Amino acid sequence: MLIVQKYGGTSVGSYDRIRNVASRVKALHDEGHQIAVVVSAMGGVTDKLIAMAKEMSSNPPERELDVLLSTGEQQSIALVSMALREMGVEAVSVTGRQAGMITMGSHTRARISTIEESLLQRYLKEGKVVIVAGFQGVNEEGLVQTLGRGGSDLSAIAVAAAAKADVCQILTDVDGVYTADPRIVPKARKIDEISYDEMLELASVGTKVMQSRSVEFAKKYGVKFEVRSSLNNNPGTIVIEEHPTMESVVIRGVSIERAQARVTITGIPDEPGMSGRILKALGEAEINIDMIVSNIAHDGFARHSFTMPTVDLGKAQVALRPLLNEMSDQAEIETEAGIGKLSVVGIGMRSHSGVAATMFESLGHAGINIGIISTSEIKISVTVEEEHLEEAARVVHTAFGLDTE
Amino acid sequence: MLIVQKYGGTSVGSYDRIRNVASRVKALHDEGHQIAVVVSAMGGVTDKLIAMAKEMSSNPPERELDVLLSTGEQQSIALVSMALREMGVEAVSVTGRQAGMITMGSHTRARISTIEESLLQRYLKEGKVVIVAGFQGVNEEGLVQTLGRGGSDLSAIAVAAAAKADVCQILTDVDGVYTADPRIVPKARKIDEISYDEMLELASVGTKVMQSRSVEFAKKYGVKFEVRSSLNNNPGTIVIEEHPTMESVVIRGVSIERAQARVTITGIPDEPGMSGRILKALGEAEINIDMIVSNIAHDGFARHSFTMPTVDLGKAQVALRPLLNEMSDQAEIETEAGIGKLSVVGIGMRSHSGVAATMFESLGHAGINIGIISTSEIKISVTVEEEHLEEAARVVHTAFGLDTE
Repeated sequence: MLIVQKYGGTSVGSYDRIRNVASRVKALHDEGHQIAVVVSAMGGVTDKLIAMAKEMSSNPPERELDVLLSTGEQQSIALVSMALREMGVEAVSVTGRQAGMITMGSHTRARISTIEESLLQRYLKEGKVVIVAGFQGVNEEGLVQTLGRGGSDLSAIAVAAAAKADVCQILTDVDGVYTADPRIVPKARKIDEISYDEMLELASVGTKVMQSRSVEFAKKYGVKFEVRSSLNNNPGTIVIEEHPTMESVVIRGVSIERAQARVTITGIPDEPGMSGRILKALGEAEINIDMIVSNIAHDGFARHSFTMPTVDLGKAQVALRPLLNEMSDQAEIETEAGIGKLSVVGIGMRSHSGVAATMFESLGHAGINIGIISTSEIKISVTVEEEHLEEAARVVHTAFGLDTE
Repeated sequence: MLIVQKYGGTSVGSYDRIRNVASRVKALHDEGHQIAVVVSAMGGVTDKLIAMAKEMSSNPPERELDVLLSTGEQQSIALVSMALREMGVEAVSVTGRQAGMITMGSHTRARISTIEESLLQRYLKEGKVVIVAGFQGVNEEGLVQTLGRGGSDLSAIAVAAAAKADVCQILTDVDGVYTADPRIVPKARKIDEISYDEMLELASVGTKVMQSRSVEFAKKYGVKFEVRSSLNNNPGTIVIEEHPTMESVVIRGVSIERAQARVTITGIPDEPGMSGRILKALGEAEINIDMIVSNIAHDGFARHSFTMPTVDLGKAQVALRPLLNEMSDQAEIETEAGIGKLSVVGIGMRSHSGVAATMFESLGHAGINIGIISTSEIKISVTVEEEHLEEAARVVHTAFGLDTE
């Protein structure tokens, strides 16, 4: 098999840990697999480099920040390669550039635009273990760019796509993706297999295993990947294009988001363009609104509700007040903080009816009130009071039969 | 003017020193000059990176060592660029690769083979200050290579050649090249102007300002360069293609090498191939022999003398003994340690007669015996007892009128 592995900064955070990574890679290599390994900077190094930049400039130019930060991964790949060579494994390092990672967009948060044929494929063909610098590439001009938060995961998926790997293993400090956060739902189980779309929906509603863009990239290029632990050899969670048997499970997982707030606007005339103006004002204030519900009250006025992170609530009120005064002298803003969002995700929803009913009923039996509801094809989200959020997660987890025995 | 400056690791060894370099560059820029600045890794960083490599491997692979070491300069260029930007100067960094430095040969001691048109020229045309990573380039395969000791000087000369700079300033901790080492010859003077060939001869006989290969590179590409202090703004020493007025000075400088030893072999039949076999044996033992004198003694046997660093003397005896036994049962090795070498260098020698006579007479008057003599077109070297070496340097310095008043 051709396997791409990705190790984060903690996994290469000390000489001993680097040797441990090398041992794991050697074991796979000894089994006869072809291997490319994507590594991050040693834990703490990126922060140290940022601190160095801050010594030079209160607002370091991002072009130069990328030149500086990319040295962290370049050091890691050299050290990991050395450790493998010391164990007798023929390993070679490649930078993002040498791996053909072509980027576009802004410095410090670039995107991968294309992946060029490169040294990576040549070395793999030669049977070498290739150690690839994550988090980095070069743009069309030849300038070094970094990929921002979660960039090394993205690099790993891209390397797997470029090398046509059989699987891309994202090694991390958790055993995989769970049906719910085990700290909140003790009966949560590790998921063996999940579709890209489910993984994306879970990522968008608080399950912080991987960034959406890495999952999207994997989906686009059909890269099968596995989230698994760097601390043991247990199988993790395979993320893959959905297939028919996956639909037999109604709900794949339950996720929560804390510290949400609701804003409800009343007394706005029900005229075209009104809600557009409201959303535009919130957008210009850089407030990420999440759930949106609009309807007409019996008095003929519209009623708009939005949810957003609690930290944005003050900013939202400042942004909306002058606009509403302009729209109507009867406009009112009502706000509610201290709410949470509970979501259930599963492609099985498409072929199973009554999912919402099961969810709402189970919450009702537990005496938990539902606020706003929003749905997508494979997700149902509701708001509840934050103090009941964890209990709500456990109730729903049980209701959909996700609990371990 | 288009000026290339090179700052070594000490000059960028702390945040304050980096700011100081940036201030100096800004001052030149404010005067209206175009500037490219070649920098080394921050002082101590290269040693730290080597120590990291040693943690991973007793004998780190050189390919990976280059990947690791080149991060030192990459960090410097980012930090220097940031410091300049903070001062309002439009500065951009380029790596060795981005400066078009194409290398060949072995990792950790590569040579510059060609200099490609690159981002360097574009940025200079745009009026930007360009900060270039010294000590590094990429080979035809696209692999990072470092240039070994003195590599950043070589980078600076290469950048000056590529950019067709008016002058390349090598900023260092001395004020320039002196007629002799001022610690030994207190009346030594700074040389205002010296030819490449004189500089090369001085470098070959112990004047450690710059490595020969950087001077050779400058000569090959006709790069005028100046060795000057990074601590003040005094003019330094200009190194340039020789011109007629240079010959008015008979001797440009005096140089010494300590800790030399002499080996004399006697009792070897005067037959063809004998001295070749001796030199081959010494070469295979990796002994760098320096001066060679051969002649025929009146008994019909040949007499060969060599000088070498004292540290190699034991190794030389081990290498020669079996060979000599094989050659003749009358072969003898006589050794002398504790000698030094005194050299005078100057292109004026070509047009002035009596230089050797002046040198030998002055030493004779001082009661200093001369051992072996060797000459080139612009250099005369003699061995003297090491205990008289410094005095010999002062005597000769005075004899050629080099003393300050």
